[in-house]
Amino acid sequence: MTKNELFENIRRKRSFLCVGLDTDAVKIPEHLFDKSDDAIFNFNKAIIDATADQCVAYKPNFAFYESLGLHGWDALERTVDYIKENYPDQFIIADAKRGDIGNTSTMYAHTFFGNMDFDAVTVTPYMGEDSVKPFLAYENKWVILLALTSNKGASDFQLMREAETNERLFEKVLKTSQEWGNDDNIMYVAGATKAEMLSHIRKIVPHHFLLVPGVGAQGGSLEEAAKYGLNETCGLLINSSRRILYASDGVDFAEKARAQALKLQTEMAHILTQNKLI
Amino acid sequence: MTKNELFENIRRKRSFLCVGLDTDAVKIPEHLFDKSDDAIFNFNKAIIDATADQCVAYKPNFAFYESLGLHGWDALERTVDYIKENYPDQFIIADAKRGDIGNTSTMYAHTFFGNMDFDAVTVTPYMGEDSVKPFLAYENKWVILLALTSNKGASDFQLMREAETNERLFEKVLKTSQEWGNDDNIMYVAGATKAEMLSHIRKIVPHHFLLVPGVGAQGGSLEEAAKYGLNETCGLLINSSRRILYASDGVDFAEKARAQALKLQTEMAHILTQNKLI
Repeated sequence: MTKNELFENIRRKRSFLCVGLDTDAVKIPEHLFDKSDDAIFNFNKAIIDATADQCVAYKPNFAFYESLGLHGWDALERTVDYIKENYPDQFIIADAKRGDIGNTSTMYAHTFFGNMDFDAVTVTPYMGEDSVKPFLAYENKWVILLALTSNKGASDFQLMREAETNERLFEKVLKTSQEWGNDDNIMYVAGATKAEMLSHIRKIVPHHFLLVPGVGAQGGSLEEAAKYGLNETCGLLINSSRRILYASDGVDFAEKARAQALKLQTEMAHILTQNKLI
Repeated sequence: MTKNELFENIRRKRSFLCVGLDTDAVKIPEHLFDKSDDAIFNFNKAIIDATADQCVAYKPNFAFYESLGLHGWDALERTVDYIKENYPDQFIIADAKRGDIGNTSTMYAHTFFGNMDFDAVTVTPYMGEDSVKPFLAYENKWVILLALTSNKGASDFQLMREAETNERLFEKVLKTSQEWGNDDNIMYVAGATKAEMLSHIRKIVPHHFLLVPGVGAQGGSLEEAAKYGLNETCGLLINSSRRILYASDGVDFAEKARAQALKLQTEMAHILTQNKLI
């Protein structure tokens, strides 16, 4: 998917919501296990069918599927296929936080973009250019590079200031990585728990899309994220996982998930209108 | 496995060799595909049987298995089971370079240590303490944290100097992470392509084990790595992947792999003797 196509989807759906598919076998409604040994996929399918018109992206979190072994990988592959077949306008993000030496990153890129047809993959920048570049070799596919994450440990290294330039590590990641790609193939993870930091990030990457986790369960605010993060093509994908997926653990889980997604979408439509993006 | 048990294995086998199982379907001998649809596992089994008495550790590289989808995961799980059953003295490393927010890292830890019984997993430090700690919650299991990697891109961020302390990022990772664990549950990745850097690393982590990739195909030297990296419990696991796995692409691949492993083991036995560790 190109940047323009993504922006058009955002305008059409009046939403920049990404639904994080952190599907946890322990948290999904018990009744799903009664009829089938396919509870994980059935849960995802119900969530997707209930939310697809409210969001522009889905983000399966690989850890949750890998922890179930072969069964989990199978559910993940079928979830991606299901979205591609039924909702081809969705931007699908492999939240896998990969990154390794060149020949190994090439293998990972093949997995996400060759085998599984994701639109994007989250990549960790620690190993530098040759760990990221293999993911950029695929046309109309995206790297979403970790810059400033939403967790407490983000401050351990990401805020470290460089002696020579006085730049913080996450700022150096933003600057350096612009030599590897551009706003048509790189996005950045920018945590919403530090919304005012988004204004620093916007100065360095004015035109890039930012994937913003941490709204909801992790304490970030949508309004704040929009205030500091919006740009001329929206430029934001706001992720919500737990708040949507686990809105209810009863038979009404999909209905309640839809209500949560709709609430966020309504707020987003208002923000897009106010900012004259629709 | 405890640190003492690992050191005892090193002394007994006169080797600190780790064989990297970067098993690439494109590179393994063609005849393996003739008889079976199980070529990946059969290749690993043959390599393991041929090298197990020459090495103390195996390190499957997850990218290579994931790129084959379900079939690859199955081959990986069976490889780990095969080593555990037949060579229980081997230290098995999940080379997966994971790391995410706390609840997600907990899922990954469950995958590697709960489901699959690896002894260690490689973890990337970018997201800080809460991304690493869940892996340290398992007794006698190890985090192998990326400090200074062996690839070209290592210089992009890992060598960045902090204004306040004049420490480089990889040094800050070494220091900070010692508050999270100790030399009984953390090792560090330290690339052999910059062997003299190992002396800096040794000053900060004198007692920790270091996993040293980059000997062989990536140009690092075993002698140099040992010169700067050895400590009182050896403290080194030297990884070799391609040089051993692909020593031949004929029917003699396992025999040739053994010869390469034996060559490294012989050099290691000499180094251990010279340094009075055996």
